[in-house]
Amino acid sequence: MTARRLIPVSATLVLSLAAATGAIAKTPAAPAAATVVNQAISEAEVLGAQRAWCQALVDISTTHARSGQAAAKALAERVIDSAYGYQMGAVLFKPTLTVAPQTFRTTRAGALAYFVGGDAAFPKDTGFALKGWTNCEVANAAVFIAGDSATTMGNVRITNSKGDVTTVDKTWGYVKDDAGRLRIVLHHSSLPFSGN
Amino acid sequence: MTARRLIPVSATLVLSLAAATGAIAKTPAAPAAATVVNQAISEAEVLGAQRAWCQALVDISTTHARSGQAAAKALAERVIDSAYGYQMGAVLFKPTLTVAPQTFRTTRAGALAYFVGGDAAFPKDTGFALKGWTNCEVANAAVFIAGDSATTMGNVRITNSKGDVTTVDKTWGYVKDDAGRLRIVLHHSSLPFSGN
Amino acid sequence: MTARRLIPVSATLVLSLAAATGAIAKTPAAPAAATVVNQAISEAEVLGAQRAWCQALVDISTTHARSGQAAAKALAERVIDSAYGYQMGAVLFKPTLTVAPQTFRTTRAGALAYFVGGDAAFPKDTGFALKGWTNCEVANAAVFIAGDSATTMGNVRITNSKGDVTTVDKTWGYVKDDAGRLRIVLHHSSLPFSGN
Amino acid sequence: MTARRLIPVSATLVLSLAAATGAIAKTPAAPAAATVVNQAISEAEVLGAQRAWCQALVDISTTHARSGQAAAKALAERVIDSAYGYQMGAVLFKPTLTVAPQTFRTTRAGALAYFVGGDAAFPKDTGFALKGWTNCEVANAAVFIAGDSATTMGNVRITNSKGDVTTVDKTWGYVKDDAGRLRIVLHHSSLPFSGN
Repeated sequence: MTARRLIPVSATLVLSLAAATGAIAKTPAAPAAATVVNQAISEAEVLGAQRAWCQALVDISTTHARSGQAAAKALAERVIDSAYGYQMGAVLFKPTLTVAPQTFRTTRAGALAYFVGGDAAFPKDTGFALKGWTNCEVANAAVFIAGDSATTMGNVRITNSKGDVTTVDKTWGYVKDDAGRLRIVLHHSSLPFSGN
Repeated sequence: MTARRLIPVSATLVLSLAAATGAIAKTPAAPAAATVVNQAISEAEVLGAQRAWCQALVDISTTHARSGQAAAKALAERVIDSAYGYQMGAVLFKPTLTVAPQTFRTTRAGALAYFVGGDAAFPKDTGFALKGWTNCEVANAAVFIAGDSATTMGNVRITNSKGDVTTVDKTWGYVKDDAGRLRIVLHHSSLPFSGN
Repeated sequence: MTARRLIPVSATLVLSLAAATGAIAKTPAAPAAATVVNQAISEAEVLGAQRAWCQALVDISTTHARSGQAAAKALAERVIDSAYGYQMGAVLFKPTLTVAPQTFRTTRAGALAYFVGGDAAFPKDTGFALKGWTNCEVANAAVFIAGDSATTMGNVRITNSKGDVTTVDKTWGYVKDDAGRLRIVLHHSSLPFSGN
Repeated sequence: MTARRLIPVSATLVLSLAAATGAIAKTPAAPAAATVVNQAISEAEVLGAQRAWCQALVDISTTHARSGQAAAKALAERVIDSAYGYQMGAVLFKPTLTVAPQTFRTTRAGALAYFVGGDAAFPKDTGFALKGWTNCEVANAAVFIAGDSATTMGNVRITNSKGDVTTVDKTWGYVKDDAGRLRIVLHHSSLPFSGN
């Protein structure tokens, strides 16, 4: 072997620290700022994702009223594909109004049927997002950011075209995808318990 | 400087790879197996934590029946302190039967009041765990293990001393603490929606 | 409002548990097995990723010998794009043989130059992967799986066509991408210190 | 059963949304701000942990000079126990100056021996932290925060009492413990390669 590219240090070499580090110290210090990649989820990102969900609900309702179910369905598909994490294998989704044996909508098809109906495989779904929602607001009780996942719990209040307000108890869980976008991987929504 | 402990390589040293690695190759190879620390959450751990929650519910009921509320409360405190993550700052807990404005029990006191009652600060709590539960079973719809956190969604069916079965829609979220024990950091429980 | 789709419970409704859960209990229990998504990193996946890195190193050398630098470079690009995480913003990469002020190769271009040379922006790089490597073996001292990330530390021993063996101290850090593939986001390689 | 605490909704109940949500809407909205628990690692925390490591190194040297090895050892133990994560099972630690077969110090005892020497089980350790260090500075090339873990890579420059500066290539990996404190779970330090 003639090429001498790898230079492990022989056990016989003993250099003084002064000599060696003298040379090293003359090396110009790296002046550049450090590259920082921060994938931590921020509270602002979580609140933004919540607002986006609310806006999407109203948008689907508006699209339905103006352009019909097919247009609303197309929008709902885009929303699901960008805001939920079904491509990860499953989403833990318990919508507000589903019933057994189709309570849990762990597949994309089940989520889409819930939001816009029209799927014979989910015969009880009439399209939650088509009910003429005009407003949607979030009131968090708590937000827990574990660093690379975040969960929220609180109320969501949605208003229909008559001004009726429905309050639901809502839990969302988020993770970031490779592109840095929060995706819903957990969604449990329920009507408040009415005590005695 | 007389001590020559640090030996950075001078820029003038050029050794042949053959010579240097010849020496290195004679070093006895590390024979030991690698130390492996695996903090990943397993499915078995998740299912075990669910069973432990069910067992604790029945145990608190049994303790209440046999030994009274004070004993049940003491047990409930031990369960909360070992199975939930309140020491992390908050738990996102929406119990089955709470109502506004105390729906969400993000503090340990709120959880304890829900399970065993007797706290004037939570006047509507009569003690969910004191209702004579004799059995508790979990039927998961989905389990999502992100690696260092896990969430489950599905039904929990609890049976009282008369044989009545109550089914709830249940979401749990877990993380591991420093000791490697799963702790509940998210718990959303709701009665099934009753469709129209 | 005529449509009666949402049915929150009025505060005036009081049903007996026996009556209500009697109905619920008749609901057929969900028979299906739970959907399980497990993104935890396993030890087998980590060891597989290490073997894949070793194989890629040998493959690039072999390709270089048979088909020249351009072919080796094309292969190295595929390796970097599939095995490293540069698309996340940066990789913390300290190759074995780099020197200041280009010691750290946090960009894809810097990694490619290190492996196959030929980049005027990295004039000291002669192509580490082109040195005729014929074998590469990993001896881990420790593996730490945090759940959604994993790190390894130990020796990697690489053999050239003359049979010379070079041992390096190697740390790798991995995360999973959206597709579930481990990617190197940290790589610190250094020649062993030669003591006094 | 006379106690009527659980009130699942009967399938025969159909209430108008207007009536029901009218009642709900009158419920006073939760006014309190959300509880926010944020366990994400911040860049400031990482930089702080690095500065703390540097300060601890100088402190151990100073303590050694003033009070002797026993005092330095006691301080080093406190530093290791508070700044490293050995209690998690192992730390991936490759110190600057260790040699085979004791290159990797995955145990607390191995780390302590490296820093302060005096352990017959690690006969080549003379105590890296006892070498009279008077200054320690970090120059990061890159910082990668995954959310619940963080890694840094760059140079650390340490100065002894004669003013000699030694530069090392340094990788640190951190996670947060239950108390929210960053702990080093990965530490790979190496002298710069000296090119040909």
